[in-house]
Amino acid sequence: MTVIGLGLMGQALAGTFLAAGHPTTVWNRTADKAGQLIGQGAKLADSAGDAVAASSLVVVCVSDYDAVRELLEPVGDGLGGRVLVNLTSGTSQGAREMAEWAQAQGAAYLDGAILAIPSDVGADAVILYSGAQSAFESHESALKVLGAGTTYLGADHGLSSLYDVAMLSLMWNIMNGFLQGAAMLGAAGVDASGFAPLASKGIETVNAWLAGYARQIDEGAFPALDSTIDTHLAAMEHLIHESEFLGVNAELPRFIKAMTDRAVADGHGGEGYAAMIEQFRRPAGDRT
Amino acid sequence: MTVIGLGLMGQALAGTFLAAGHPTTVWNRTADKAGQLIGQGAKLADSAGDAVAASSLVVVCVSDYDAVRELLEPVGDGLGGRVLVNLTSGTSQGAREMAEWAQAQGAAYLDGAILAIPSDVGADAVILYSGAQSAFESHESALKVLGAGTTYLGADHGLSSLYDVAMLSLMWNIMNGFLQGAAMLGAAGVDASGFAPLASKGIETVNAWLAGYARQIDEGAFPALDSTIDTHLAAMEHLIHESEFLGVNAELPRFIKAMTDRAVADGHGGEGYAAMIEQFRRPAGDRT
Repeated sequence: MTVIGLGLMGQALAGTFLAAGHPTTVWNRTADKAGQLIGQGAKLADSAGDAVAASSLVVVCVSDYDAVRELLEPVGDGLGGRVLVNLTSGTSQGAREMAEWAQAQGAAYLDGAILAIPSDVGADAVILYSGAQSAFESHESALKVLGAGTTYLGADHGLSSLYDVAMLSLMWNIMNGFLQGAAMLGAAGVDASGFAPLASKGIETVNAWLAGYARQIDEGAFPALDSTIDTHLAAMEHLIHESEFLGVNAELPRFIKAMTDRAVADGHGGEGYAAMIEQFRRPAGDRT
Repeated sequence: MTVIGLGLMGQALAGTFLAAGHPTTVWNRTADKAGQLIGQGAKLADSAGDAVAASSLVVVCVSDYDAVRELLEPVGDGLGGRVLVNLTSGTSQGAREMAEWAQAQGAAYLDGAILAIPSDVGADAVILYSGAQSAFESHESALKVLGAGTTYLGADHGLSSLYDVAMLSLMWNIMNGFLQGAAMLGAAGVDASGFAPLASKGIETVNAWLAGYARQIDEGAFPALDSTIDTHLAAMEHLIHESEFLGVNAELPRFIKAMTDRAVADGHGGEGYAAMIEQFRRPAGDRT
């Protein structure tokens, strides 16, 4: 294996390959980060070109796609016949452009996204891959070493970036929902650690509903299984009033209600919450 | 027991008491909803006053607090020496006012919130109670029949309403986060049922972080355990760009980033995400 880029994540990737017994060549713009890996048996390449030439599987994990280009463009010729796996964070457009470039060099290209912190690499890290299935399958056993959550998404190189931001978006929303509640209860004298166990139980409950919501979204029919959007809306007003009464930030509650108001205005008040998908599908003001 | 209000939830409450062998008196503004319960052994009171007089524990579950007042004020005298449990949805202010009124009638008052749908009552329903601990304890065994998640929160009568909206807020945020992701991936040809399993796994992961975040919030120190807020912010820009590129609604991504921008402006860029609590604690524009 070759691992290019030895930030915290790159070091975790290379260290995991080494621990699994894979001969591993590493390279970084500054060589001082390779010290510990060399101690674990890594071979430090003299140049990016040598690093590419050393392995049929070349993994890159640097700060952004511009940095990937800057590193690899001068050594593009050497990529022919190899599999390039780019685990750098970026956009789906960036991934598709990178795929075109890599394919023009004769390389097979997989774009990936690591949904984990470095310490989870080699353990239960979720790592997503998209691009040619044959390229994934030819290195699947090595890639699986990097995380138990190794998942191939499909041929569209943009998918791993898209899933990445979709998952991050979900993460921020959960954390913001928790913070809103913690701020409210905090203003009433309840500490966040007192709220966390019930919040955690509530998250589990909602998590169990997702598959059903997903089915409704795919079928395009949103019968209210429990609450209607109208009923949700009434409770959203309570949320706004409580936030205002407690003197905490009511922007997020007002934002949530404003989107829901639009769903009601569109005639979805009697349907279940999954009907809100229509609001998320189109930019505000774009009503047809 | 007495149960006043026989909407779907009231019927579930009364039916559960009956199934557990508790003699139960019911009353509703219109008597026709009592039919099935009478078949199960309920006694139908002739008036709200008779319903109150029938039991030492009086449970009310109607549409809103105004309806509670309208029903109970004419029969307030009869509440003396009884425990009034109000499971109607409302605000914390409403609950505290109701507590004062009930106490003036000589009743012990518990305010409650049912975080469940009617079919979960008598099973794993989470039902929260706040008010005098002695009143809760004296009827705890009967109340526990209504839901395995029966929880006493504290003496402040407003707590159950506050927890209720805090939990709903968390729920809407999770669902919106999922819908944002489903809209994005849908625009790229991935169906929601394809996204749901990974989303579900991601929710579990974030759920496991909450206790740690809560501890940071209570301690007022936010060392970045994994990502800094600065790093989150860079990924939020990807989320906005992807949403715009895909032609889906980018309002929620922009909202998330705007709050995060303010945290960075306040000097929290190098801290962990839990430092965002400060943004949730105070209204926008209220900077000190």
